[in-house]
Amino acid sequence: MKAPQTQATLPSSPCCSSALPGKLKLKEAEQMAMLFRVLGEPARLQLLSFIATHPAGEACVCELTEPLRLSQPTVSHHLKVMYEAGLLQKERRGNWMYYKAVPGQIETLREVLAGLTQSSS
Amino acid sequence: MKAPQTQATLPSSPCCSSALPGKLKLKEAEQMAMLFRVLGEPARLQLLSFIATHPAGEACVCELTEPLRLSQPTVSHHLKVMYEAGLLQKERRGNWMYYKAVPGQIETLREVLAGLTQSSS
Repeated sequence: MKAPQTQATLPSSPCCSSALPGKLKLKEAEQMAMLFRVLGEPARLQLLSFIATHPAGEACVCELTEPLRLSQPTVSHHLKVMYEAGLLQKERRGNWMYYKAVPGQIETLREVLAGLTQSSS
Repeated sequence: MKAPQTQATLPSSPCCSSALPGKLKLKEAEQMAMLFRVLGEPARLQLLSFIATHPAGEACVCELTEPLRLSQPTVSHHLKVMYEAGLLQKERRGNWMYYKAVPGQIETLREVLAGLTQSSS
């Protein structure tokens, strides 16, 4: 959804600045930007996709190296970054650590993006 | 929404790797990661928020420097990066360039994030 184009509300030239409502405050923007930076890696997006679409809803490192053709240290590094960012949760079971997505964090990002396509009015 | 936790489908230890469905292909992941990196800047998120929540659904640089307390060159740089990434469209009117969000791009990112919280099954 987009705001209706009400040309009448546009400032006439020369443009006079006026404070805008801007829903996103600095502290929230900093937190969201950090999460977006973490997602700014193709391998991480693919790892999250693999984990989220796994029939069990979770996956261990050993399952993630082959599909992405990445080394286990590289996969483990990306998973660690996403875990520390709160995008993944992990649980040790037997010899293996299982990772699953944290829906809350992803949902928050989706809501932020929704706010970037909608008018506050 | 999350996949049901069907423990039975978890590989037993030692874990045997098997290809996972992974909805997100490399080319798409690279494109999405680029957009997420562009959004990985608090000032850009705030600028997008200001523009999207502007009553007119668009804003010019002159309106964006004051609320963010950023210099016009800095604001212009961030707007240029987001324009080149396809997140913003611009239109010159009179002496001023007006920017508005491109809902399609943001929606695509929201769909990608949705795919990171849902099972493919």
